[in-house]
Amino acid sequence: MEGLILALDFGGTKLTAGVARAQGKGWLALERDFSSPLGSRKEDLDIIGRLAERLLQQFEVRAVGVSFGGPVDFDTGTVLLSHHVPGWEDFPLRAYLENMHKLPAVVDNDANAAAVGEHRLGAGVGCDSLLYITVSTGVGGGWILNGSPWRGGDSLAGEIGHMVVDPAGPRCLCGKRGCLERLASGPYMGRELMELGPDVPASPSEPDGATGEDVARLAEEGDTNARRILLRGARALGIAIGNAANLVNPQRFVLGGGVTKSGPMWWQEVRTTAIETALPEIRDSFEIHPAALGDEAPLWGAICLARESFPG
Amino acid sequence: MEGLILALDFGGTKLTAGVARAQGKGWLALERDFSSPLGSRKEDLDIIGRLAERLLQQFEVRAVGVSFGGPVDFDTGTVLLSHHVPGWEDFPLRAYLENMHKLPAVVDNDANAAAVGEHRLGAGVGCDSLLYITVSTGVGGGWILNGSPWRGGDSLAGEIGHMVVDPAGPRCLCGKRGCLERLASGPYMGRELMELGPDVPASPSEPDGATGEDVARLAEEGDTNARRILLRGARALGIAIGNAANLVNPQRFVLGGGVTKSGPMWWQEVRTTAIETALPEIRDSFEIHPAALGDEAPLWGAICLARESFPG
Repeated sequence: MEGLILALDFGGTKLTAGVARAQGKGWLALERDFSSPLGSRKEDLDIIGRLAERLLQQFEVRAVGVSFGGPVDFDTGTVLLSHHVPGWEDFPLRAYLENMHKLPAVVDNDANAAAVGEHRLGAGVGCDSLLYITVSTGVGGGWILNGSPWRGGDSLAGEIGHMVVDPAGPRCLCGKRGCLERLASGPYMGRELMELGPDVPASPSEPDGATGEDVARLAEEGDTNARRILLRGARALGIAIGNAANLVNPQRFVLGGGVTKSGPMWWQEVRTTAIETALPEIRDSFEIHPAALGDEAPLWGAICLARESFPG
Repeated sequence: MEGLILALDFGGTKLTAGVARAQGKGWLALERDFSSPLGSRKEDLDIIGRLAERLLQQFEVRAVGVSFGGPVDFDTGTVLLSHHVPGWEDFPLRAYLENMHKLPAVVDNDANAAAVGEHRLGAGVGCDSLLYITVSTGVGGGWILNGSPWRGGDSLAGEIGHMVVDPAGPRCLCGKRGCLERLASGPYMGRELMELGPDVPASPSEPDGATGEDVARLAEEGDTNARRILLRGARALGIAIGNAANLVNPQRFVLGGGVTKSGPMWWQEVRTTAIETALPEIRDSFEIHPAALGDEAPLWGAICLARESFPG
C-alpha cells in the first residue's frame, strides 16, 4: 500500500477525509461528518482528526493534502481566517497536522484546490489555463496558469466573488455595492425572493427562508420574480467571466457549486452575457464548462497537491 | 559593438527605432518619425524601415525586439489587427522583419512590452507580479506573473480597458456600456466636457475639441464639470484596479500614459477607490506606482524581450 495520500477538506458545514492512491481517481475510503454547529476551530480539528485517525489505522499513507474553506498562506500553510468558524485567525494548520500525524502536509484554499482537482482530473484536463469558479453559498475562484496554480502575491488571487459588477447594485456584506457574490450566490438570491412578498415562494425548502434552489425551481416553473432574480445573478456572473476573460484570457472557465445546477435558462444567460462582455477578439478564445468532480473537487485537488508536492 | 539590440515601436501616431547594448538602460541611438497620417501598413513599414536602416548602417546589432500597438499572436509573431491603421490583419510581422534584416526578431503587443520594460528597468523592478496599465487615448494592460509576461491562452490577456465597471454607464465604441476605457481615457473625457456646454472649456487645446489634458487642467482650476468627469474616470480606474487585485492579487500596479499626469486629485481618487474595491485582506497586498519609463516603456520592453529571447 505504498504511496497512498490522505486528503482532508474543511468545508463550511462538512468535514471530509479520504484516502487515494498515488495515481488515478478512485477513493480507497471516504469519511464525512458535519462540522460542529456552534463552530470552533478546536471542535472542527477534533472531528476531522477522528476521521483521519480511522483512515490512518487502515491505510499507510505517506503525505497529507488539505483543502481549507478560507484564505490560506500557501507557502507557510497558515490559515488566515475562516468566514464561518471563529478561532482560525493565523492558525498554522500545516505545522499542526505535520506534528499530529508525523507526515508531510500541504494546505491550500478550497477554491485553489478545486481548480487543481478539476484541472488534473476533471473538466480542465488538457487546458493550460483556467479559472475555476464555485457559485454556492459564496462565490470564489481559483486559477491555473501555465498548468500550475496561480495564487497571487499574497496567496489571495481568485476572489471573483467580490468583483464589483454593478456599482449601483445592492449592498454586499463586504460593504461594497453590486459584488458578484451579492447578486449570484444562492442565499442572497433566496433572500431577495423572500423580500418580494410574504407568499412568494409558497413553500421554501428551508424553515428560515428560500434558497438558491427554490429560486431556480420557481424560475423554471415560470415565477416572474424568481426568474428575474435568477437571471440577474446569471448576468452578474456572465459579466464577471467576460471581464476575467478580457483581463487574463484563460482558455477555460469551469463552474461548480450548487447554483450551477439551476438549469439551462441560467447557463444560457451566463454564456450569452460572458460573450457579450468579452471583446470580439476574445469571444472565441474561451469555453465555459460545468465542473466534473462536483463536491469532491477540493478533496481531489488536495490529493493532487500532495501527490505533486511529495512525489515520493 | 557585439551584442547590440534594435528595438522598433509601432505606436498609434509615432514610429520609433532605437539601439541599446545587451545590458543597461541607455540608448546608443534613437530615431522617431510620425506614422503616415492617412495610415496604411505599407507606409508605416516603409517609414520604420528607413529609421531601422539608418541605425543598422551605424551599428552591428544581433537581434530585433518589436512593440506593436495592437493585438499580436506572440508565438508566431503575427499582428492580429491594428485599431488605428488598416491592412495589418493577420500580418506576419516577425517573419517580415527577419527576412528584411536577416536577424532574429521577437514581436509583442505594446502593453505587454511596456509591462516587461517597467518590470525589468522601471517601476516594477524587484516585483514578482504586476499589472501595467496605460491610460491614454485608450486603456490597455500587460501582466507580469512569476516574473514573466503572462499573455493568456490566445495572447490576448490584459484588456482591462474593456472591463465593464458600470453596466448602466455610457456606451463604449466596443458596443458595451460603462467600459473602463469609455470612462477614463483622455479623448472620451474631453468629449464629455465639450458636450456639457458650448463655452466649456473656453479654450480647448485641440481645434476639434477638448482633450484629457484640458479636463485635468480645468479640474485643477476648479471647474465643476471637468472635476466631475475627471473623478468619474479615476473612480472607474480604481474599481478596475480593485477588481483586478481581488481576481489576480498582483503585488503592484504600474500606471502609465498621458492621463496619469492629471495631478494629485486624480491619483488620490484612483488609490482610494482601488482600496475600497479590494477586499480587506487584499487592501494591504498591492501598491499603485506611476510608470518610470514614460513613453519609452514599450521600446525598452522590446529591448528586454530581444535580450531574453536571444541571449546571444
